Amino acid sequence: MEQFVQQTLLYDFYGELLTEHQRRIYEDVVLNDYSLSEVAADLGISRQGVHDNVKRCNKILSDYEEKLHLVEKFVNIKEKIHRIHGLAKNCESISKEELVSEVEHISQEILEEL
Amino acid sequence: MEQFVQQTLLYDFYGELLTEHQRRIYEDVVLNDYSLSEVAADLGISRQGVHDNVKRCNKILSDYEEKLHLVEKFVNIKEKIHRIHGLAKNCESISKEELVSEVEHISQEILEEL
Repeated sequence: MEQFVQQTLLYDFYGELLTEHQRRIYEDVVLNDYSLSEVAADLGISRQGVHDNVKRCNKILSDYEEKLHLVEKFVNIKEKIHRIHGLAKNCESISKEELVSEVEHISQEILEEL
Repeated sequence: MEQFVQQTLLYDFYGELLTEHQRRIYEDVVLNDYSLSEVAADLGISRQGVHDNVKRCNKILSDYEEKLHLVEKFVNIKEKIHRIHGLAKNCESISKEELVSEVEHISQEILEEL
């Protein structure tokens, strides 16, 4: 997965476990793409301090994912729901039987993962 | 939700964030239903110690859920996937058009939550 997408997902899932200060820095640098120097000036801390904070946040978020695997689980489920949604959207090209069989199969797979 | 089900779900999602010692006690008391005295004797700690540990674990797990709401999110999704799966399983009673419309609607709802 592209690094930015991965960082955004990790933050979406586990961001609330960071402190407010960490969230502020992480959002500015990673999500809103401000430079380290801009954020440093804005918060009145050193550029190195901002850099270290982002690095620490990435480590914290990755550690949660390594233990819980919830982003991974979620991405898998989302991909499968997209397939079900796509089948319904493009149902003209398949019979009712095919649609039922596919939807039953995919939803069963999701239920086994949940 | 029934308390035992809720505790099991919270443990399924966030149990890896407890220490090994905490997990051992939590599993014995809450999931496997051993008495506090049995677990205390088994681990060579006081009955009160086991009790306090379980209480602390419940608090830790609930705090994670209060911040992340991932159990709530997944329970919602699971309920909707069950509806989709049920529609496919019992498709004889509905037309292809109804099936498509329902599946499209529910899968869209899930995608908005994910």
